[in-house]
Amino acid sequence: MDYSSKVLAKAVEEISGLPGIGKKSALRLALHLLRQPESQAIALANALKNLVTEIRYCRECHNFSDDEICDICADSTRNDEILCIVEDVRDVMAIENTNKFRGKYLVLGGKISPMEGIGPNQLHISAIERKLNTKVVKELVFALSATMEGDTTAYYIYKRFKDFGVKFSTIARGISIGDELEYADEISLGKSIQNRIPYNEAG
Amino acid sequence: MDYSSKVLAKAVEEISGLPGIGKKSALRLALHLLRQPESQAIALANALKNLVTEIRYCRECHNFSDDEICDICADSTRNDEILCIVEDVRDVMAIENTNKFRGKYLVLGGKISPMEGIGPNQLHISAIERKLNTKVVKELVFALSATMEGDTTAYYIYKRFKDFGVKFSTIARGISIGDELEYADEISLGKSIQNRIPYNEAG
Ligand SMILES: [Zn+2]
Ligand SMILES: [Zn+2]
Repeated sequence: MDYSSKVLAKAVEEISGLPGIGKKSALRLALHLLRQPESQAIALANALKNLVTEIRYCRECHNFSDDEICDICADSTRNDEILCIVEDVRDVMAIENTNKFRGKYLVLGGKISPMEGIGPNQLHISAIERKLNTKVVKELVFALSATMEGDTTAYYIYKRFKDFGVKFSTIARGISIGDELEYADEISLGKSIQNRIPYNEAG
Repeated sequence: MDYSSKVLAKAVEEISGLPGIGKKSALRLALHLLRQPESQAIALANALKNLVTEIRYCRECHNFSDDEICDICADSTRNDEILCIVEDVRDVMAIENTNKFRGKYLVLGGKISPMEGIGPNQLHISAIERKLNTKVVKELVFALSATMEGDTTAYYIYKRFKDFGVKFSTIARGISIGDELEYADEISLGKSIQNRIPYNEAG
């Protein structure tokens, strides 16, 4: 494709580097921006640059944060005794969106996946141990995907911390087996976390 | 939705300002960028900023250009005698992509549309007149959408310049009536421009 302009060709190339955006859609987006006031593309460009240069992760829970400690960890009205274990920051957002959970979170940053070469050491599992050592946490809630990797991750954490004297629970599986947590609708997810069930080795 | 971070919330807001990208997709794109090396988002941001601040339009044909005159207008191996009238820069790209046309272009910048309040004065029609006054052009080829607006635009240009002693033709309509030009496949479009037919007032 001849774009007649190197700045346009470069923009199309960079936009189409995003997942799910082909060259045609990238061109369409670039042409759209050219029809809008210049300020729109500049605001978008600045927001993207700030996103990757300024984002921070909460020291406590590894959620996104603008400060050292995120708003959720810093919120003293939330219940410190219940720690919800999630794979990803998106899962925190999804659960927060249900308005059904008032405990705290711990973001693992992934799930154990031998296929993708991700073992426990690449996840924030020692952060769970630090939390448990404070003796404040009384319950660990697994809010993990209903997949082989999600189950393996829950089982690993359960085995490692089962003698720490805390209760283990897992979100109720109104969500179908095989579903990624982040795709579940709000109502199902809200019910799942309210009606969580005790965790046992059988999963 | 609680994004836990203002820079993330801002990025999602700006990305979802693009057409066809909702909040969920915007979040997914933002999180994707956060998983890539920082340099990727910065390259994208720079490309977008350069796009809107550095793009130029060819003085001759109103196509995108990096210089005052675009590569197509500057190409002396192309036939100056045939001038292809298109609505949009995307149409130039679509026709160039067929490799079936070696004349020059004139980008109108839209089509006459009373519904959208676009009249001939908002289009680059005086640029056609300048071209015709050079006495080099021998044929005007309409490569316009097969829509009411496309037909109206062709008819207006035909009426205005019919006494300038040039031939008028229109791309063959292998493309269905009602189709926007830019959506036509390359092969149909290539054939249409090769097998163009004389234009007459009946359309
Ligand atoms: Zn936190
Ligand atoms: Zn040009």
